[in-house]
Amino acid sequence: MNFNIDEAVEVLERTPKTLEYFLSGLSDGWLHCNEGEGTWNATEIIEHLIEGEKNNWIPRLKLMLQEGESKPFPPFDRFSHLQAIGEQSIEEKLHEFKTIREQNIETLKALIEPELHLEITGLHPEFGVVKVRELISTWAAHDLTHIAQIVRVMAKRYKEDVGPWAEYLSILKK
Amino acid sequence: MNFNIDEAVEVLERTPKTLEYFLSGLSDGWLHCNEGEGTWNATEIIEHLIEGEKNNWIPRLKLMLQEGESKPFPPFDRFSHLQAIGEQSIEEKLHEFKTIREQNIETLKALIEPELHLEITGLHPEFGVVKVRELISTWAAHDLTHIAQIVRVMAKRYKEDVGPWAEYLSILKK
Repeated sequence: MNFNIDEAVEVLERTPKTLEYFLSGLSDGWLHCNEGEGTWNATEIIEHLIEGEKNNWIPRLKLMLQEGESKPFPPFDRFSHLQAIGEQSIEEKLHEFKTIREQNIETLKALIEPELHLEITGLHPEFGVVKVRELISTWAAHDLTHIAQIVRVMAKRYKEDVGPWAEYLSILKK
Repeated sequence: MNFNIDEAVEVLERTPKTLEYFLSGLSDGWLHCNEGEGTWNATEIIEHLIEGEKNNWIPRLKLMLQEGESKPFPPFDRFSHLQAIGEQSIEEKLHEFKTIREQNIETLKALIEPELHLEITGLHPEFGVVKVRELISTWAAHDLTHIAQIVRVMAKRYKEDVGPWAEYLSILKK
């Protein structure tokens, strides 16, 4: 096991500000490009991260601590953010993500005593029994997945533009 | 063609500070993990980015502008940074990357007049004829590739720890 709650928090703390620095002020061409129909652009990925902060990680964690395996998690709609009417600027969305993540990390620290709670189990509607430490590991890995997705989507915008160098850039083939 | 030099520079400008924010102060577990023998950890990826700033992008661009197709680029050793004896901390390496990148963006802006220079060609030792705009596109896409690599390497550290959620995290399968 590589998981360590302090190290997971290191990632959780860094993601919003990293994305804020990376995406704020970028041209619309970068923020609105995607990988084709039905795929997400950078802005939609930030909306999905906000949705997870509101309705996934902390609500599920609280349910595990309160109910154990007696009550399954309500399903999390991974596409619900796409129905939101996005009138906010990317900077406003990034600020919202940063703010709610900060609050959630405070909640995480207040809820979890590592010696007592990491092995507590809950019931995932699809996977069955899952552990608190698996949920927190997934929260951090999920951040990393979506950072990777953002830069992959952006890189593919230059798929033709890089000319023969495409051969060296495996990100363009994914 | 999606390439636009100002937008490419937006990425080139953001990468060092983004990585500086993301990686500074991270635990060694995150900075030293890799994807198995012969693969790079986050620290080695930063060394590779520094090497590119020193010996790849700007030197090749200058050669193209001076020599056109008459003289091929000297080959760039993509593994040379691994021979460097890395006594610097990650923070020092990130600072070096940021400093040399800032200088190189200044040089790029001084060298390139978009209306005049983007279609100029040079001779890649492997690919043959390449254009200035392809080199600059590749420089930006190469940043994005290595940001994706850093977060992928880190995510894989939690491959087992996420438990059944691994199924939803395609980054762990790459």
